Parts: sequence; C-alpha cells; structure tokens
Amino acid sequence: MIFSSKLIEDAVQEFAKLPGIGKKTALRMVLQILKMEKGGVDAFTTAISRMRNEIRFCSQCHNVSDGDICAICSNPSRNHSQVCVVETIRDVIAIESTQQYNGLYHLLGGILSPLDGIGPEQLNIETLRKRIKDNQIEELIMALSPTIEGDTTVYYIARQIQGLPVKITTIARGISFGGELEYADEMTLARSIAKRQPIENYVNTGN
Amino acid sequence: MIFSSKLIEDAVQEFAKLPGIGKKTALRMVLQILKMEKGGVDAFTTAISRMRNEIRFCSQCHNVSDGDICAICSNPSRNHSQVCVVETIRDVIAIESTQQYNGLYHLLGGILSPLDGIGPEQLNIETLRKRIKDNQIEELIMALSPTIEGDTTVYYIARQIQGLPVKITTIARGISFGGELEYADEMTLARSIAKRQPIENYVNTGN
Repeated sequence: MIFSSKLIEDAVQEFAKLPGIGKKTALRMVLQILKMEKGGVDAFTTAISRMRNEIRFCSQCHNVSDGDICAICSNPSRNHSQVCVVETIRDVIAIESTQQYNGLYHLLGGILSPLDGIGPEQLNIETLRKRIKDNQIEELIMALSPTIEGDTTVYYIARQIQGLPVKITTIARGISFGGELEYADEMTLARSIAKRQPIENYVNTGN
Repeated sequence: MIFSSKLIEDAVQEFAKLPGIGKKTALRMVLQILKMEKGGVDAFTTAISRMRNEIRFCSQCHNVSDGDICAICSNPSRNHSQVCVVETIRDVIAIESTQQYNGLYHLLGGILSPLDGIGPEQLNIETLRKRIKDNQIEELIMALSPTIEGDTTVYYIARQIQGLPVKITTIARGISFGGELEYADEMTLARSIAKRQPIENYVNTGN
C-alpha cells in the first residue's frame, strides 16, 4: 500500500503490528480515528499507555492487577478455600463472565509443552505449591486446555502437591450446549458417555 | 465480559470503539500490547496521537496531508494536467498502490446521495470547478462508485464544468481479472460486451 502521508503510514504500520490486523484493517481503523474528536483520541491513547505502564501482576495469583493484590484475591466475599488453576488471563475473564464461580484463581502462564521449550520452571507451579502449603485451600479446580499438554500439566501439578491436604478436581468435559453429537470428536463423545450423569430432579414414575 | 482490572477494562473499551472490533478482538489486542516492550507501546500511542493532531487536508485536492499541499500535488514529476476524481482517501491509496497513475487527485468526500442527506454542498465540487478553471487541467478521470449515485455524481459534475476546456473520462468497467462470467451481474456483463475492445498486437493471419 502506498500512502501519501507519512503520519497516516506510521499509524497504519503501528496498528498492523497487532495480532490479526492486516494493513487494510489497520487503515480502516486509522481512518476511523481521523474522524474521531481529538478528546476521544486522547482517551484512547491514554487508556493504552496507562494500562501498559501501570499494570501489575497479582503477587498471589499472577493475574493482571491494578495493585499488588488483584481485585479477586483481595475480595473478602469470595471463597478463599477454592483455587481454579488456569493458563492465562483470558481464561479468568471467560470464567468470571459466567458469574458462576466465586473462588480464587491461579494463573500458570501456560501449560507444559516440551516442544515449545515450556517446562515447569517457566510456569507458576512452585508458587502454587507454596500457596497451597501456606493457605487454607481445600480444592484445586483444574481448568486447563483439554489436550495432551493440559492433561500432562494436571498430572505434573498433582505430583508436585502430593501429600498436601487439598482435593484436586477438573472441569467437566463433554458435549457443548448446542453441540451436535455427530460432529463431536470420538474422544469427547466416548468420555461423555463414560462420565454420564444422572438427571437431577427426575423421578421415574414407571411401574 | 468481566475484567478484574480497571486498566484492562478501559483499554478494551477504547479499542472496542473502533469499527469492526468487538470486545473479544479488543481483548486480544490489549493482551498483545501488554506483552509489548514499553517503548513499542509508546511508539504506538505517539503515532496515533501525532496523526490525529498533526494531520491536515491538502488545500488543493482535499487529500490528507502532512503539510498545506499534499505530497502528490507538490510532486513536480507528476502529470499536473490529469486529475482523478475519487470519493475518499481509501480510493487514492488503492489507485496509488497500482503504481500505474501519475496524475493528481481530487477528493469529493463522498458522492451525491439525497437519501443520506448528501447534496452538492457537502462535497468538494465547487473547489473542483475552481481548480479546473484556474489551472491547466486537460483531463478529468472519474473514478467513483459504479452505482446510480456514482453515475449521478459524474453527470452532475459534468454539468457544473460545462464549457470549461477539459476532457471527462471514467475508469473502465467490466469483468474483473479472475472474475467468472457466470457470476457477473447482468449490467456489468452487458456493458462489457457493448464496450468490447480490440485485442492489441493481434494480427489476423487467416486467409
């Protein structure tokens, strides 16, 4: 693409550095910003600068945080005896958005993946062990990727905290809501049959 | 979506104001920016601020410009007797990217569209008339949308500059390269047959 303005070109190039943004999309955004009020553009750039410069990571769960301890860990009305182990902040946002979970989190920062050079030292596993040891944590809910690497990570963590008085569970796997049986992969389908669950509040009236 | 950090939430909300960016995409961008070096983020926000605050519009062709006269209008090696009339800066970038056009441009800022309340006063038509009158412009190349509104605009401009010594042409319309005949609309196909062109450098050797 050839731009007749260096200012536009620079802005497009900066936008195109973001993931999933090609030059055409970047240009569309730049032209939209050109139409915005100057105050709106200032709010945009300030929000981004502030976020990058002021963000911190919770010293307890490694989630992004506005202070030393994040809003979730410092919330006294949450259940501090449950810790949900996830990979990244994205997973926290997804689970929080369900509004069904009231415990705490622990962000590993990824999962074990020898091929990508990610071993236990690259993940926040040691801090998890210490956290369980030093706090009254009763349940560790593993919410990692449903892959070989995810399962390996669950197994590794279970080994690391062996002997500590904590129950380990994993989130249920099965057919998604709205998912069609015929398109489910064999492993998921096999597992969802093996782990079948009773229907609650159902009374068999047959005689 | 529920964020545990106000800094993240603000940044996501600002990104989500851009066209075609939903909350999920905005979050992906924000998380990417979190991973960037602080210097890189500064370059990003500075490029955007500078663009919005320093951009100007060429007093001659209305294109975005870094100065009073844009880089195209002030380039002496371009053909100043040809002016290509387009709607927006996007069209200029598209035509410039072909590297086949060496004349100047005139940005109307849109096309006549009574339904959207866009009349001749909202477009840069009067400045075009003045430009043709005051300069040695020999050809006006109309490169507007191939729609009723586009054709109406061409017709309106032709009426406005009636009597001025300038030739008016429009860009060729027809089947796109790689386009398939069976998917072309009737109007385009009919027009491309009516306006058929001789094959250059072809010598009929039949006897």
